[in-house]
Formats: sequence, C-alpha cells, structure tokens
Amino acid sequence: VSGAIVGVVGGGQLARMLLEAALALDVGLSFYVRPGEEGISGWSPRVVEGPLELEALRAFARTVDVVTFEHELVHPTVLAALERDGVRLAPPAGAMAVGSDKELQRRLFASLGLAAIPSELVDRGRSERPHISPPYLLKAAHGGYDGRGLVRVDTEKDLPPTGRYLAEPILPIEAEGAVLVARSPSGAIRSWDPIRLVNLEGICVEAAWPSELPEAIERAALRAAIAIAEALDFVGVLAMEFFVVEGGLIVNEIAPRVHNSGHLTIEAAVTSQFENHLRAILDHPLGDTSPLSPAAMVNLLGRIADRTSPSRVRVHRYGKTPRARRKLGHVTALAPTVAEARQHARAAARTLGGELIRELEEVG
Amino acid sequence: VSGAIVGVVGGGQLARMLLEAALALDVGLSFYVRPGEEGISGWSPRVVEGPLELEALRAFARTVDVVTFEHELVHPTVLAALERDGVRLAPPAGAMAVGSDKELQRRLFASLGLAAIPSELVDRGRSERPHISPPYLLKAAHGGYDGRGLVRVDTEKDLPPTGRYLAEPILPIEAEGAVLVARSPSGAIRSWDPIRLVNLEGICVEAAWPSELPEAIERAALRAAIAIAEALDFVGVLAMEFFVVEGGLIVNEIAPRVHNSGHLTIEAAVTSQFENHLRAILDHPLGDTSPLSPAAMVNLLGRIADRTSPSRVRVHRYGKTPRARRKLGHVTALAPTVAEARQHARAAARTLGGELIRELEEVG
Repeated sequence: VSGAIVGVVGGGQLARMLLEAALALDVGLSFYVRPGEEGISGWSPRVVEGPLELEALRAFARTVDVVTFEHELVHPTVLAALERDGVRLAPPAGAMAVGSDKELQRRLFASLGLAAIPSELVDRGRSERPHISPPYLLKAAHGGYDGRGLVRVDTEKDLPPTGRYLAEPILPIEAEGAVLVARSPSGAIRSWDPIRLVNLEGICVEAAWPSELPEAIERAALRAAIAIAEALDFVGVLAMEFFVVEGGLIVNEIAPRVHNSGHLTIEAAVTSQFENHLRAILDHPLGDTSPLSPAAMVNLLGRIADRTSPSRVRVHRYGKTPRARRKLGHVTALAPTVAEARQHARAAARTLGGELIRELEEVG
Repeated sequence: VSGAIVGVVGGGQLARMLLEAALALDVGLSFYVRPGEEGISGWSPRVVEGPLELEALRAFARTVDVVTFEHELVHPTVLAALERDGVRLAPPAGAMAVGSDKELQRRLFASLGLAAIPSELVDRGRSERPHISPPYLLKAAHGGYDGRGLVRVDTEKDLPPTGRYLAEPILPIEAEGAVLVARSPSGAIRSWDPIRLVNLEGICVEAAWPSELPEAIERAALRAAIAIAEALDFVGVLAMEFFVVEGGLIVNEIAPRVHNSGHLTIEAAVTSQFENHLRAILDHPLGDTSPLSPAAMVNLLGRIADRTSPSRVRVHRYGKTPRARRKLGHVTALAPTVAEARQHARAAARTLGGELIRELEEVG
C-alpha cells in the first residue's frame, strides 16, 4: 500500500465491500469500528476499536489522510469539531448532518423545489401529537434503518412514549427507486442508471435495473439527486431514495454513503459504487458508471445456508451472526432482461434460505 | 471469520484476488510470503513471512486447515514431507510436483494420449546438447514464467552455460488458448469456456472469450484438461495452456493453480476462478462457471498510470513496484462481442501506459 490512507468509520458489510474495491484500486483503508462490530474485523490489519466520541475519533483521524463513513452514527457536533481541527471529512460534516437527519433533508428538498413527503416533526418526549389523522407513519428523525424507527399509527395507542419523529401520511406508492451519484471535491459528478427497489417492512429486499420506470421519472430522479449532491457540496457516493406517487416523483430520503440499493453495481456496472466512492473522496478521476447488463440483487435476511452455491448468481456473505431480518448477505444476478435477472436472484435467495422472499414474490 | 482457515503459500496478485473472493465467500485466509514479497502484505491481518523451507512451512501449516499455493516454488520433496506429516495440501503434493516440472508434464500428456510438443531434456550442467538442429527453443524444466527461463537458440552460442531445459522445435502456432477447470476432492469438476490467449516474449498479454476457435478444438481442449485433472487427482483450479498447430490441438503446459488466463472470470463468469478454487479446496459445492458476457483482459506490464480511470474497463492494480515487463495490473472489458471487448481493453491498457500494447495490436 502506498499513497493516501482512507479512514473508514464503520465496519459492517459496506466496509467489507469497500475493502474489496480498495484491493483492486490499491488504496489503503483503515477502519474504525465499535467494540464487537461484525463484518470487517479479522479482515484487515488496520482495524481500530473504540467509541464514536470526539477524542477517540480525533486520534483515529490523525492516522489517516481522509475520513469517510459507513454509517450515520457519529453525532454532527463531533463531526463539526473534527472538521474544525482540520480533519478532512468526505462527505463534509455539513452533508453528514443533513444525511443523518430526516427533518433537515425535508427542508433541503423543499428549498430545492423537489416534491417530498409532507411531514410534521413530533417530539414524543414532549408528548406532542401530529395534526394528521390516523392511519399515518412515524419515522425516527435520526438513526432509523431497516425498518427500525418506523411506526405505523392506527390509533393513539400506537404512539411511542418518547423520541423525535416525522409524521407522514401513508402514500399510495406505485413504485420505489434509488439514484446513486458520485461527486468529487472538484465538483465532477457521475450517476448510475436509476435502480428499482422493493422494500418490505421498511427493509430493502430487492434492487434491479433497468428500473423500467417512465423516462420522465428517471430523468427527474437523476436531476434531483444531482441537485441535492451539489447543494450539500457532497463528496463521495450519495444515495437518494424516491417514490412514484400518482405518476409523479416524490423524493423520500438520502443516505450520505454507499448504499444497499447500489450493491448490484459491483457486477453490473463498469465501476462499482464502492470504487467510485474511494475515487471521489481521493479526488481521483471518477470511473465509468455505464451499466454492463440488466441485473437484480436480493438481500439475504435473517438466515443463509452454509456453503450452498446456487447457479446464475454471485453470492456475497457478510460474516455476521444470524438474527431475524438482519442483512447477512446478498445475491446478484445478471441476465439479458431484468425479469430474468429477478427470477434468478429470487430463486437463489430462496435456495439460500433468506427471509421475506415469499413476501417478495407476492409483490410481483 | 468462522470455519476453516485456508493457508495460501505466496503473496502476489493471485493472493490479492483470492482475498477479494474470500471476503465475499466469508472464508478466512492466512498467507505465507517470502520476505519483501509485494502484493498481499499490508492487506491481511494474517500474513506470515518466512523461507520456503520445511520447518517454517510446517509451523505455518499448523495454523491453518488446508494449504494451497499461489506459485510452484516450494520444492516437491518439501511438499511430500508436509503431506506425510498429515498436512492437507490442495492440490496434493503429487499434482504440485507435476505442475512444477515441464518434463513430468510431457510424460503425463503422453500417457494420456494427448498431443504435446516433442521435446528432449537437456542438462546444460552436464554440457548436454539437444539432437534437434537450430533454431529451437529451450524452456527451463522448472520455474520458468513470464518469459524467464525461455531461450531461443539460433546458434550454439545461444546455449546457456547451466540449467535443465526442455529443447523444443519452433512450431507454426496458429493460435494459443487456455482451459481452466476446478476439481473437488469428491471428484466434482467444472470447467469454464476456453479462453483465447496472446503471448508475447513468453508473457501472457491478452486473454479473451469466447475463444472463436473451432468447436472441435474447444472440445478437445476441455477433454484434455479434465483428463489431466483426473489423472493428477487434482484439487483446486488447474490451468492448461494449448496451441493450435496445423489445425490440431497441442497441449503446451499446465499450471497447478489459479492463472493469469482466468482473470477475466472475475467479471465475465458467474463464479470466478478464485472463488471456485476456494470452494474446491474446501470441498464446498462448486459455483456456476457459465459465462456472463464476451470479455477481454489485457495485462498492464512494466508501468501503470496513477489514478487514471479509463472508460469501459475494470482496472485491477496489484500494488507492485514497477519493473520492465513485470505484471503490475490488468484491465477487463465486457462487451456484446469479443472484438469490442478486445478494443476496449487494449485502449484502456494504452491509456494506462502498459508495455507490449503496440506489439499486441500488431498481432491483430
């Protein structure tokens, strides 16, 4: 390893896939993980364990050239303090602050004139109630993922006792999707083709491209993601999730990092999200994001058969202890059509024993 | 990492690519490298440095469940002694002995009724001369690779002063190719489609598939590689290189390991040679070897531009110090036709500054 060392805060499956990309790119990575975090531990000679606190992160930052993130768990004030110290954060602290806060995201979307979900901040710690009538959704303003922090409120009894939430109407969602963009410090941007998503119980279960959405939706989604990346002066890969509601685009939320929806880019794009994230934060020329093939990815949730090697797919195992609904791996299939790719990926996920596959097939 | 640990003797680019595959497969690797060997060092928490000698390898073998090889540099008597100790070698010592000795290979090919290059063993230490008249080729009986150990003899003056060689006529080679097979301890075998090779100065410069060779040649090559793997009771991935001479198949040599000709399987096959090598030696079910797309790989020899990201290819950098004709990386392109894939891969290799690209284009 020669040249700049990238510090990655977080050590789960995204860290593992960043390491795979870093090996081919010959970019050195150093990981900062929480005690007991599973994924990267044992796989790199540079794994530091510690709490997500200023002093510890400061010490880690001194050992690397740039710090990036695999999750949004570091407090924004800690990130801002690191940046004031002169630590180069990519994405910058300001972008991370927005990326980890759904309320700030909604404000940004509004300021950019993007259609977003009408929502209302509710502080249950102060016993606030939304003005909207049930049924509606509460989404944790911070830190919700994979269905955690998501509450459906049908009656007052469903209201959680504490926590800050966004209250949202239950929209008639016709389709879900994601757009990934990579942006360099110099402002260079590359986007991948839009990805079609199926989420169940708030968890991403399937991602596929081409999205088969109307071209106007795809164009609007790409424009929105680029506008958001530019407004945040973003550096690295940014994921934007969207809905199609009544034939129009609704921006749902962003993640300030490589993202589950983009795992299929490992096999199905000339340059993967992981490689371009590293290229972006190092200000190297961004790689070609062209698609190589229609593709589908299905997550392996909750359980995963040992050793089994289903045909027609590439299997990625994350080395994590099984737990209900936990992401333990994924499969990606390439095929001449997205319908075939979906079939292959679902069949493989069934063979490997992943949860929610039957439910996925019911969605169609 | 849970489960069996695979010990890999050797730490160059093949070790790196094995590590990439092991990450996705969640198979733990431990590497045994020679002092100063470049490639895997710095990339794994389990890298042991030492000489390729019995006592040191014995100690390494005690820390792993199975030992495999990235090169053929361990002496066959050392391998046989390890096996007598009860160390599980995959491939087994006998297969490694043949794989590292061109003379034994020729005898095996003859015993299997496979057409091979007529050759004669010449011990220059005893001042032996071949009966063949110049011009002819001398190939080191042991350890030659990437053009090293290859001597063209036009006059007696070209004869090396020492060393054991095979003397061979210079054949009118019409095409070169390779077949890769993966074989499990249980005898299960999977082969990838034959690969077309261009070698220059004895170095593999380009690999591509489909081979565009006559079907009869492809079938004969696949049959030959499978017969060899079975005769050797081989475990792991075996590469067989062949020539087409006067329209017929001539088996050239084998390598008892993952091989440069198979790098395109990373992107262009459902399961790569690296993943199936690990699956085979662990006796897991072998992965699907179907091709995903026509593809071409071009080696980056001698020099490689920093940071540059040419379009239409995936770049693999090996992290090695540049030296004339040294393999520093490779690019792989997928495209609707092999001709386009070749164009893209060659254009990228030119952009990245690899050696022998002009010469490659002259070959056509």
